[in-house]
Amino acid sequence: MNVTKFAIPEIIFGRGSMVHVGQCARRLGAKRVLLVSDQGVEQSGWVERVTELLEADNLEWVYYGDVNSNPRDHQVHTGAQLYQEAKADVIIAIGGGSPIDAAKGIAILASNGGVISDYEGANRIERPLPPMIFLPTTAGSGSDVSQFCIITDVARQLKLSIISRSLVPNISIIDPLILLTKSQELIIASAVDAFAHAVESYVSRIASPFTEIQALRAMELILRHLKPALEKKSIHALEQLSIASTAAGMSFSNAGLGAGHALAHSLGGMFDVLHGLVHPILLPAVMSFNTPVCTAKIGTIGRMILGPGARSDEEAALDGIDKLKHYFSEFGVPVRLRDILPERSTLATLAKAAVGDACNLTNPRTADEDSLLGICEEAW
Amino acid sequence: MNVTKFAIPEIIFGRGSMVHVGQCARRLGAKRVLLVSDQGVEQSGWVERVTELLEADNLEWVYYGDVNSNPRDHQVHTGAQLYQEAKADVIIAIGGGSPIDAAKGIAILASNGGVISDYEGANRIERPLPPMIFLPTTAGSGSDVSQFCIITDVARQLKLSIISRSLVPNISIIDPLILLTKSQELIIASAVDAFAHAVESYVSRIASPFTEIQALRAMELILRHLKPALEKKSIHALEQLSIASTAAGMSFSNAGLGAGHALAHSLGGMFDVLHGLVHPILLPAVMSFNTPVCTAKIGTIGRMILGPGARSDEEAALDGIDKLKHYFSEFGVPVRLRDILPERSTLATLAKAAVGDACNLTNPRTADEDSLLGICEEAW
Repeated sequence: MNVTKFAIPEIIFGRGSMVHVGQCARRLGAKRVLLVSDQGVEQSGWVERVTELLEADNLEWVYYGDVNSNPRDHQVHTGAQLYQEAKADVIIAIGGGSPIDAAKGIAILASNGGVISDYEGANRIERPLPPMIFLPTTAGSGSDVSQFCIITDVARQLKLSIISRSLVPNISIIDPLILLTKSQELIIASAVDAFAHAVESYVSRIASPFTEIQALRAMELILRHLKPALEKKSIHALEQLSIASTAAGMSFSNAGLGAGHALAHSLGGMFDVLHGLVHPILLPAVMSFNTPVCTAKIGTIGRMILGPGARSDEEAALDGIDKLKHYFSEFGVPVRLRDILPERSTLATLAKAAVGDACNLTNPRTADEDSLLGICEEAW
Repeated sequence: MNVTKFAIPEIIFGRGSMVHVGQCARRLGAKRVLLVSDQGVEQSGWVERVTELLEADNLEWVYYGDVNSNPRDHQVHTGAQLYQEAKADVIIAIGGGSPIDAAKGIAILASNGGVISDYEGANRIERPLPPMIFLPTTAGSGSDVSQFCIITDVARQLKLSIISRSLVPNISIIDPLILLTKSQELIIASAVDAFAHAVESYVSRIASPFTEIQALRAMELILRHLKPALEKKSIHALEQLSIASTAAGMSFSNAGLGAGHALAHSLGGMFDVLHGLVHPILLPAVMSFNTPVCTAKIGTIGRMILGPGARSDEEAALDGIDKLKHYFSEFGVPVRLRDILPERSTLATLAKAAVGDACNLTNPRTADEDSLLGICEEAW
């Protein structure tokens, strides 16, 4: 085995764990916090709750909420300016992947200067970032534990993947009670995103025993608890999805992702679709493409999807991918690219934009532009 | 589920990973390192190897090697004095649990002052510690990833358990190649210690989904790979034991231990026995004592030990404990307290010293002095 790294933040997990946010911020030396979120989270009342908790701990705060789904480069630049002007010393984000990624971008610029596209790729951040605390409100992005930050470059119409050890926050506070206020669609999109994180990182070129165990566990928990979470909105099932998302985050943060996320980023950059909803479309096609070079691993995933019964690796892989397609279609989400894209001619542009994405580097089978186009055609 | 915390260091794992030590130290701002180890590690050449690597990275170093197995309070005090005099800025330890625990003690005093017994118990350390990097040379103690530090109080003839989030080092560099130079006895003692960490933390009062998965995995890897590691000294099997020890460390660091480690600490304080070798003696008796309050969990462990076959939780627990005793006896290590203690009358003193150990707090079944004496009698 090659030398491998495994880094995660300190994790505080559990129902009601949000109440520790002020104490955590103080522990990191906070006097004035920059709080980052978005309109959706504001409307559900969670931003106000965090500000109350900060005030209860005698902390000053400045709020920045101008963040979209698929956060834009200029939003990061404005946030960084606010951080400087406010003389903030700790960054807290509450939200799905978008506010958290925006907060990471703000942290990069706050201590390293420049513009966000300067940091595209792996290990381009030189100076330490301000202390960061993240509170995820979805069970999916894993951004609250990961070394990844994805920002939309508006001019180039693509998503920048920024990967660095220093993007792992100091503390992730994961409170499953927040999930109770989420829509069905968001729960599905998040869980499927986490499932894709688990699958892609499990077969990644740089997967390690430390990441593989987290990936397998995430898949198993999602397959077992996503339907009950949707049908009954049981807090137990939602909590298990939170654990799954965190486990998948630990895995992909350290093992990287693959061709599916490379394509998802180019799709998101061009069409501003909800990130999680592209995986039911892309993941089966990516798994099929990868099967020849990692049949045993895709077979292991297949067996988990299919349940008991003796099968060869190849059978388990193929049948598992088929059953996964069926599983996704039961959620009533789009399962073909043609359902979400205007015309087939865009596929070539998508493939071209995805080939250079940092996620593509760790895909187990080399995926050039033609291969990526093939995956898109398969998923059309 | 209650609110739970999970904190581990950044882990760099793999054959030859030791070469990264200088670069890691520089990343933590090192100019002059205090290197802590012991005579055994010196003799096997690993201390010299680390100093070469530090020099290759233009780092100055000061060496402190006056550390015993079951490190003493005065050894920690001397080391802390050396750290101050040398104006060191980062602490690196290479060794088994003893040099690593000594290094943690030195780090506590270096930034918090006083004497080591001031910090006995949980969360008594107030000021941040100097940056720490640990390189474990045994696959057992888990101290390189844990929040625990165990130091012998010579005057009181007991082991101080110090538990704090700040004892988790910045980086743990785990290089399984080092295990190739270890004796059979040390490999067994270390693996059994890791197995006990896994079992005790799995049933701990504060176990969480994040720790349970690591605990189960550690048990499974040790049961599968300890014999091959001893018989063939295969690097693959030794590497798996390293992974197991790290996983068990992630678990007990965050979930705590139990009555077995409380007794092991009082035993170690009074008789200076090799820590790992007390677990084959104590663990089965502790598991039997705990079974009534966590039958399902001990049953899960039992099934892992026994292999396939339908059994009730209770049957699996009882039969599993029996088979575990047999498994330990096959290694030719002592399996009764009478084999290592001078006389039965010492048991009462042992139980009395163990009852207040911090590890006893998380034992799933309340273990008062009488219960602990009962466990010792059972193991006599």
